[in-house]
Amino acid sequence: MITSPHNPLLKDIRRLQRRRDERFVAEGEDLVEAAVAAGWPAEATLRAGVDVEPELLDRVSALGSGTRVVGVYRERWDRPTGPLCVALWGVGDPGNVGTVLRGAQAFGAGSVAIGPSSADPFGPKAVRASMGAVFAVPVARVAAPGELAGETVALLAHGGDPLAEVAAELIGEGRPASGRVVTVVVGAERSGVPEAVAEACERRATIPIAAESLNAAMAATVALYELTRIPAP
Amino acid sequence: MITSPHNPLLKDIRRLQRRRDERFVAEGEDLVEAAVAAGWPAEATLRAGVDVEPELLDRVSALGSGTRVVGVYRERWDRPTGPLCVALWGVGDPGNVGTVLRGAQAFGAGSVAIGPSSADPFGPKAVRASMGAVFAVPVARVAAPGELAGETVALLAHGGDPLAEVAAELIGEGRPASGRVVTVVVGAERSGVPEAVAEACERRATIPIAAESLNAAMAATVALYELTRIPAP
Repeated sequence: MITSPHNPLLKDIRRLQRRRDERFVAEGEDLVEAAVAAGWPAEATLRAGVDVEPELLDRVSALGSGTRVVGVYRERWDRPTGPLCVALWGVGDPGNVGTVLRGAQAFGAGSVAIGPSSADPFGPKAVRASMGAVFAVPVARVAAPGELAGETVALLAHGGDPLAEVAAELIGEGRPASGRVVTVVVGAERSGVPEAVAEACERRATIPIAAESLNAAMAATVALYELTRIPAP
Repeated sequence: MITSPHNPLLKDIRRLQRRRDERFVAEGEDLVEAAVAAGWPAEATLRAGVDVEPELLDRVSALGSGTRVVGVYRERWDRPTGPLCVALWGVGDPGNVGTVLRGAQAFGAGSVAIGPSSADPFGPKAVRASMGAVFAVPVARVAAPGELAGETVALLAHGGDPLAEVAAELIGEGRPASGRVVTVVVGAERSGVPEAVAEACERRATIPIAAESLNAAMAATVALYELTRIPAP
């Protein structure tokens, strides 16, 4: 049981909370259990009252008092894989990145690719917003559209083909995906998918909406839904 | 130009930020412009450097320094109306309530109904998350399922009919809604739509997902998409 605030592990965690290295911190039972469920080993786990005095754990927590467990994990980067990959381009809000991870897990996507100017998926806000999905969904780093997997679809606010039509062509009417890999590229809320990236994609799709725009997480959720569902008979 | 921190309007705004009455505060040009666009008059508008000294505006801001404009508005409650209404039951997170408002505006829903134990749509976090949609989409208060409009669909994590099938029946294949009013009821993330409310609804629908659950805003976004789209030919 750690009883000293000068313990090196506590100091290490405090430092990681401010600025992570190739490791990151996850707080709370839900996240730590998600890591266990995904078979992602913790480099260290501190449980309040078991491994460390609760007051000391609270002091290294980013969430304040009452933290029951904190885990330290090593980041993992995969290659973009299908059957469905969501690629984020310029999605700088970590909450949106985490929510996209969560949506990717919910709809069974193969991976999430983090493109340029997108928030760190292993940062504390993204990890929290992912509700543990960061441990379940492979995450990849991509720098250019050429690194994306399979057939590429840019999701645009305006001017693309209706998403439902693109999805029907890609996944087929009434049949699940059969060996095809599809990557849907989602951009930032205001600026959208960069022009050059959209042009490098094979298809351009648009969610038909009446007014205003959706944020990246909402747009990605709809795309995941449409690209994984089997159309109604 | 207000130059005194003791100005009654500044005091009033500071008080509203802590605890609103039948009025609420919106900060930032985007929100204030959304109110103007919706024809929702401000009871007061303070522009930095025009109506008030910038430092004084910063001091009443909930967002910190650099606030350019703050508006005070009177809340408006409507009746639940269609063609599509999203009803929230026990959705306590104001960010989710705001995001649902935003989704409702994007997909052209008629209203959002705020059920029991749901967050205040005019609270500062919900207003911010709505990105101004709180001014564009009528908001209603409901206490019981009997107050909901038209045909009611409870969105459940498990056990309902596939959402796409329910939507196809309700909106018809290839045809837009014709005079029908549909209300989709969305519950809290973990507890979902309360059993009694789900039973009072005419239909129960489920978004087919592979793992875990979606939050209320993600589920509502998918429901809005599915219930407003014209199926692909």
